Amino acid sequence: MSDLDRLPEFLDTLDAEFHARGDWGAVASYIPELARVDPAQFAISVALADGRLISAGQARKPFSIQSVSKVFSLACVLSRFGESIWHRVGREPSGDRFDSILLLEQEEGRPRNPFINAGALVTTDELLAGRAPKEALSEIIGFLRASAEDDDIHIDADVAASENATGHRNRALAYYLKSFDNLVNAPELVLGTYFHQCAIEMTCEQLALAGRGIAGLPGAPMLLSEVKRRRIAALMMTCGHYDGSGDFAFRTGLPGKSGVGGGILLAIPGRASAAIWSPGLNAWGNSQVGTEAAERLARFTGWSVFG
Amino acid sequence: MSDLDRLPEFLDTLDAEFHARGDWGAVASYIPELARVDPAQFAISVALADGRLISAGQARKPFSIQSVSKVFSLACVLSRFGESIWHRVGREPSGDRFDSILLLEQEEGRPRNPFINAGALVTTDELLAGRAPKEALSEIIGFLRASAEDDDIHIDADVAASENATGHRNRALAYYLKSFDNLVNAPELVLGTYFHQCAIEMTCEQLALAGRGIAGLPGAPMLLSEVKRRRIAALMMTCGHYDGSGDFAFRTGLPGKSGVGGGILLAIPGRASAAIWSPGLNAWGNSQVGTEAAERLARFTGWSVFG
Amino acid sequence: MSDLDRLPEFLDTLDAEFHARGDWGAVASYIPELARVDPAQFAISVALADGRLISAGQARKPFSIQSVSKVFSLACVLSRFGESIWHRVGREPSGDRFDSILLLEQEEGRPRNPFINAGALVTTDELLAGRAPKEALSEIIGFLRASAEDDDIHIDADVAASENATGHRNRALAYYLKSFDNLVNAPELVLGTYFHQCAIEMTCEQLALAGRGIAGLPGAPMLLSEVKRRRIAALMMTCGHYDGSGDFAFRTGLPGKSGVGGGILLAIPGRASAAIWSPGLNAWGNSQVGTEAAERLARFTGWSVFG
Amino acid sequence: MSDLDRLPEFLDTLDAEFHARGDWGAVASYIPELARVDPAQFAISVALADGRLISAGQARKPFSIQSVSKVFSLACVLSRFGESIWHRVGREPSGDRFDSILLLEQEEGRPRNPFINAGALVTTDELLAGRAPKEALSEIIGFLRASAEDDDIHIDADVAASENATGHRNRALAYYLKSFDNLVNAPELVLGTYFHQCAIEMTCEQLALAGRGIAGLPGAPMLLSEVKRRRIAALMMTCGHYDGSGDFAFRTGLPGKSGVGGGILLAIPGRASAAIWSPGLNAWGNSQVGTEAAERLARFTGWSVFG
Repeated sequence: MSDLDRLPEFLDTLDAEFHARGDWGAVASYIPELARVDPAQFAISVALADGRLISAGQARKPFSIQSVSKVFSLACVLSRFGESIWHRVGREPSGDRFDSILLLEQEEGRPRNPFINAGALVTTDELLAGRAPKEALSEIIGFLRASAEDDDIHIDADVAASENATGHRNRALAYYLKSFDNLVNAPELVLGTYFHQCAIEMTCEQLALAGRGIAGLPGAPMLLSEVKRRRIAALMMTCGHYDGSGDFAFRTGLPGKSGVGGGILLAIPGRASAAIWSPGLNAWGNSQVGTEAAERLARFTGWSVFG
Repeated sequence: MSDLDRLPEFLDTLDAEFHARGDWGAVASYIPELARVDPAQFAISVALADGRLISAGQARKPFSIQSVSKVFSLACVLSRFGESIWHRVGREPSGDRFDSILLLEQEEGRPRNPFINAGALVTTDELLAGRAPKEALSEIIGFLRASAEDDDIHIDADVAASENATGHRNRALAYYLKSFDNLVNAPELVLGTYFHQCAIEMTCEQLALAGRGIAGLPGAPMLLSEVKRRRIAALMMTCGHYDGSGDFAFRTGLPGKSGVGGGILLAIPGRASAAIWSPGLNAWGNSQVGTEAAERLARFTGWSVFG
Repeated sequence: MSDLDRLPEFLDTLDAEFHARGDWGAVASYIPELARVDPAQFAISVALADGRLISAGQARKPFSIQSVSKVFSLACVLSRFGESIWHRVGREPSGDRFDSILLLEQEEGRPRNPFINAGALVTTDELLAGRAPKEALSEIIGFLRASAEDDDIHIDADVAASENATGHRNRALAYYLKSFDNLVNAPELVLGTYFHQCAIEMTCEQLALAGRGIAGLPGAPMLLSEVKRRRIAALMMTCGHYDGSGDFAFRTGLPGKSGVGGGILLAIPGRASAAIWSPGLNAWGNSQVGTEAAERLARFTGWSVFG
Repeated sequence: MSDLDRLPEFLDTLDAEFHARGDWGAVASYIPELARVDPAQFAISVALADGRLISAGQARKPFSIQSVSKVFSLACVLSRFGESIWHRVGREPSGDRFDSILLLEQEEGRPRNPFINAGALVTTDELLAGRAPKEALSEIIGFLRASAEDDDIHIDADVAASENATGHRNRALAYYLKSFDNLVNAPELVLGTYFHQCAIEMTCEQLALAGRGIAGLPGAPMLLSEVKRRRIAALMMTCGHYDGSGDFAFRTGLPGKSGVGGGILLAIPGRASAAIWSPGLNAWGNSQVGTEAAERLARFTGWSVFG
């Protein structure tokens, strides 16, 4: 196994190498605000079990966490309401694109898992529970701030507005769920909350710190029971990268969750929590350079949940 | 965490409880030889990292390992040919039944993963590599015997013949793969090999011992490199229980592979290898009582790859 | 062949028989205003080539024509814009439910045909062409009034409002089409127009008269060229009854278009135009008694496009 | 309407035009014997109601009728056993490729209609009814000879052997049907019969004459009741060109059935029966030039079942 003392040097090398190579993938084009982001960016932060936070690249630059937020909205729902969410959403990999509506028809409105868009809409609907969107959003933001021990975490209203204006696919999913009575609140309310939740901005440093609880690191604020954090990690491993989840597990051996903004959160149980960001995406809608960085990190450290 | 010294007692309690309850599920009906098996049976063996082998129930009674064999045929292929198999088969959960042909049409003959039937046929075809079926089967049996350090592992020819006579669905899959040029050998040759591989008989004790290599236990015969056993474990976790894989990972936190004969192999990295058998199946075609036993074992021991 | 002089008597017998039997199917439940309709109703009107209009049952009672309107919105689009609509919608039977979204994903936003909901939304969008909904609706109503030579044809605003309030599935389809750039106008505008178009009320007498043009009857107002009315009739035959279209063609040998309000329009080329209404539906969402009446009418008269 | 007296001249012009243009499509590649056929060939024969037989091109050259045979095997089954076949096969367009296995999984082994391969295998199985393949084949050949009033109709054994050797997809379909208990006879027996039935050779003249019964032409040998020939024509119209059926109906207004050998049979009720042959295929697997010829013939003659 590699010496963790050489981790800072390794991460810097990774950053330099990616910039030298210059093959970044393409940024998500369907959210106008995100389409303007320069793909030639990279950041990584690793929060170790011993308390050290090691970073490289633009680790203090905020980015749109997008679907990485699904991990935390699920955490909030599990914390507040326990396991009732599983009556409305499954726990199986979908084998389909993040925004697929196909399986939703075949399975009569019950999304396959909480990490595809349809399932995340149901999670957000559950979290709303008749409250104003502001309250549900405060709960997610509060959870993130407490987890990261950092109050400087906010929503980018422009990104939320941009996604609201162009999010026809998500709107279709929401009305489709409603047609199966699998949304309790009005679709527009759920969508508004969801778009804002996705528009949360965080730096890699913040996100790595926020993930310590799911990784069960000593010293992290313990907002989740052991059972819950293990279950969330299991879902990250089987469903965290859409129809590229199996490949990600195969290559890294680690639970992770990606976002279309180019972020990836890695939970390395008992050892570390890591956040990676590079906005160019691969064919599955996951960060191209970020996926490679995750694989390289796993190889360098020898980390794998599979022993 | 529970004391492993109390494990023997716990496993006996489990066995007693299942027999007292008497809710076993239904045995697979589509293979006549298996349909005759009494569902009211249970066995479990746990091979610990310290060398102990702890069992309960009928742990020395041989059963048909069926799809659990897919783990070992894949191990043989990876050992012999490296990673070339991935040109012909994917690494993603299918979200579909074990014998589904649907995705195969949508994905033009490339099975989603090596643990659904279509993918296992391709693995077997790769292992054949122009050799006689007998040689490929010898290789799998040899791998199992060496892993378990036990030469008393055999194929039940009656089960193989029974499946050959009635395996219309697998035959359809094989010809379908052939139509996409994703079988090199003649379909009947591949099918014959596959039916025999599935008809391997093992006891829970043997299977638990054979799994030590994938779990990376100290002292086990090391037939697989670290990279390979981690990758096999990752595939077990994301694809090992067909369209119930996500649920199994969520409930147990452990990589496992089920067979329609009622067997389940668990790899608990660095800690243990376990085999469970109970022939009654749940809706996904996985052992009903076996799945529950895996979940109870994980809870009792605190084992989970997610820390 | 039967004597058409005995047609009045036959239609009365049919009406009496259906009422005596009392097996009507269930009314559509998903539009509240329609769910209140008494299923025990039947009406039929046949406009013959010689100018006679023969009816039985409640042939002067207005009902909600719903998807029968798709025939006429398509007719308006073909009349106004020619064949450009076919760049945006196909001409193939869907083999799926009227409100399916599944194929739309597989075929990247191009609906299979203009008679399923997704295709009709595209047709309505084409007809809008930047105009106010009122103008497009006036065009459809105008076409119907001119075809039926009857100005007493109106929209039931309550039904339109009811469908607008509960039409989550159609809303999902519209936003889904928009996400593929296959709606030009704002989804809410298209939906508003579509819900009003579906809420047109007509009697069987009016609908039979309005259909004469598609049947190419002598003496009817000729609003469609021969090529266009033949093409519309072909689409009615292959796609007019959703995933029950093949069965309807097999049983009746006639082009027809059903609506979820229980109406069916039959075009019997050169011979007659018929309208049938009974609000109880079968499993495919087509009028149960209406389908049987169409089959009985075809058998009695010997009418079939297949000679 | 055009004068039928000018039909010979029109057909000759068509033939000359196609040869001058030289855009023929590609011959089916998956049956080696058919892959060798020169695509630059065209033939057409029209059997008129008045008894005239008008042809152009190579109308006396035998070709492999392939799936056009499905019309006649269905006719034999309906004649011999009545309507019992509909318990085993549907009457709906499939919206899918001729050799799709996908819907078969979704609909649990019941093919959508008798004109896709899966449905035709069931029809052939029904016709076998425990008899030797030779007897079932004699029945189909006998039906064709009687219909065409020509005994010189045979099976090309080389084409049958070629298809048997390479027909992996059809073999998959047969075993798949068997797995759902929707084949009574052994799959290999059904396949053998099916491959021979598809390998029947006929000239356009023979095929046009054989189709007169389905078109209900006066003077033709009446082997089918009116009800049966109408139903067969309805199936040809909704399902006769696989997933191009709706388009064919839209363009020609006529019931037709295509074969992968490049043949098309048209039934023009009461007026004519036509056979067209050109071996190059379009994207749907239907004759490219043949489809165009059918459309041109319909336009020239004004023939359409839609009045």
